[in-house]
Amino acid sequence: MVNLVEADVSTLVVGSIALDTVETPHGNATDALGGTAVFFSIAACNFTSVNVVGVVGEDFPERHIELLQGRGCNLDGLQRRPGRTFRWVGSYDQNMNVAHTLDTQLNVFESFHPELPLSYRRPRTLFLGNIDPELQLMVLEQCGAPTLTALDTMNFWIARKREALTDVIRHVDVVLVNEEEAREYAGVYPIHEAARYIRELGPHSVVIKRGEYGSVMFTDGGYVAIPAFPSEQVKDTTGAGDSFAGGFLGYLDRAEEVKADVLRRALAYGTVMASFTVEDFSIDGLSSVSERHIEERYERLRDITAIEPLQQSQRIPVQRGA
Amino acid sequence: MVNLVEADVSTLVVGSIALDTVETPHGNATDALGGTAVFFSIAACNFTSVNVVGVVGEDFPERHIELLQGRGCNLDGLQRRPGRTFRWVGSYDQNMNVAHTLDTQLNVFESFHPELPLSYRRPRTLFLGNIDPELQLMVLEQCGAPTLTALDTMNFWIARKREALTDVIRHVDVVLVNEEEAREYAGVYPIHEAARYIRELGPHSVVIKRGEYGSVMFTDGGYVAIPAFPSEQVKDTTGAGDSFAGGFLGYLDRAEEVKADVLRRALAYGTVMASFTVEDFSIDGLSSVSERHIEERYERLRDITAIEPLQQSQRIPVQRGA
Repeated sequence: MVNLVEADVSTLVVGSIALDTVETPHGNATDALGGTAVFFSIAACNFTSVNVVGVVGEDFPERHIELLQGRGCNLDGLQRRPGRTFRWVGSYDQNMNVAHTLDTQLNVFESFHPELPLSYRRPRTLFLGNIDPELQLMVLEQCGAPTLTALDTMNFWIARKREALTDVIRHVDVVLVNEEEAREYAGVYPIHEAARYIRELGPHSVVIKRGEYGSVMFTDGGYVAIPAFPSEQVKDTTGAGDSFAGGFLGYLDRAEEVKADVLRRALAYGTVMASFTVEDFSIDGLSSVSERHIEERYERLRDITAIEPLQQSQRIPVQRGA
Repeated sequence: MVNLVEADVSTLVVGSIALDTVETPHGNATDALGGTAVFFSIAACNFTSVNVVGVVGEDFPERHIELLQGRGCNLDGLQRRPGRTFRWVGSYDQNMNVAHTLDTQLNVFESFHPELPLSYRRPRTLFLGNIDPELQLMVLEQCGAPTLTALDTMNFWIARKREALTDVIRHVDVVLVNEEEAREYAGVYPIHEAARYIRELGPHSVVIKRGEYGSVMFTDGGYVAIPAFPSEQVKDTTGAGDSFAGGFLGYLDRAEEVKADVLRRALAYGTVMASFTVEDFSIDGLSSVSERHIEERYERLRDITAIEPLQQSQRIPVQRGA
């Protein structure tokens, strides 16, 4: 069936669309626009066109729909169902690498069954956001083989749906996860061993997100490490990982070939997009960035990480004694 | 007085010389050679000549003296006193960023008063290892103005000798500390704010050590971040910070001028030297490295952190819709 479908879309994302209530040492937000699909889309739409699969309730403000559409997101795959939108309530202390979940109300998300519009069924790039791995599989099954497929997941699914999760991992090219989740899933502490465990299941690349410590990537082309962008003030890290994924995959989506140097650039773009998100609540830091802002931070990141070439004239001239 | 002394030495280090008993998930060591001055010296002697100020007891094995001298360390400033050598007993779990101290026996270190031989009194580079800040001050006062002075410290002194510590900080060029210590001393969480607090006291550079997450440096020339070298197996992180300081300052000692690009290189050399130390117990990973090993890892680190230049042809061509 799938092969008969002629539509071809750029990037497809499935994930939560949420109203978040967040408190951090720098302020708070109530019922603010959030969720994986939202942060991912707003980040990725700076690089490519994004098509969303998700669900919202009757209470989901129309202005959020307009904002996403205004950024060029295609919402043909967005379902609006009777009931309330998914809600997450969380807080952070000074260490904003760790969110404390105070409440999760699944609401319309509880009975969510992703159904792809026909026009979505041949995406070039597919991002399976952090949802039940059984739903991730349902989306995978509805898609013609994308050029690049990536997933994110979390400890909840690792503990409760390990088998289904492993099944999805076997079918994706890239796994993007937090450090602790990689360790938990692989059952080993050293991060390169955790990444090796995951890559042996199939994915050619594993990206480990480490919050304020940046990210590392294990690929066929080797090991890459990039620090976080040094934001002057970090107000709310909610959505940082999804924005990272948006920059990373959005950039890859428009690349002619996914090879080592392209993956490196993608990692830097992911880092840059996450940095905008953490500087304000909800999508406020991310939604107004321009091409120039992105390029400036990309260049800044290059400067921060640049190590000078070896100086042959200064080769370790040991003067013993003296 | 000092100005009349004509001796001129390269790098001077004052710090502990210890017999460490360590247990990690990868093995253990008993009464093994350790201490700040030891790790620092063995790392730094790959770049410059090192002159040690410290104290050992009657039980300190002669073979350790020979090893240090064999690496070119000058031990004229090493005191041997009646009693036992300083001992530290510690353990690590899987997260080897954090040492658990099980026992500290100061022994001869308790009554240690650093006395510099006349020949040491005009060092080019001075490293005040993590000891009582009052002793650090005593060393400073005995030295003619070095070209570069750096210090390390720890939570113990921050809590108990804050005033003396602040006094030393005001007199040094570089502060090298662990992330948690920088936060504790400055009383702020964001690491760039902690670094700013310290730099406002006088030091032109602050290097923050973050264990497996690498290090960051705040200098007049800007912000630099370097990941840890990806060692295949980390067996024992004892001495990593001191080896880092040894590579960092050893490299700077032989530089003609301490400027932005030289500080960056120094940070990379510090990272490389720390990586050798963590791969085995005591000094076993560090003591046998050659110039070639150091250069290989330096180049590897460059590759790991390299971000490609912006591609002007791929400037964010948003194709909305599609």
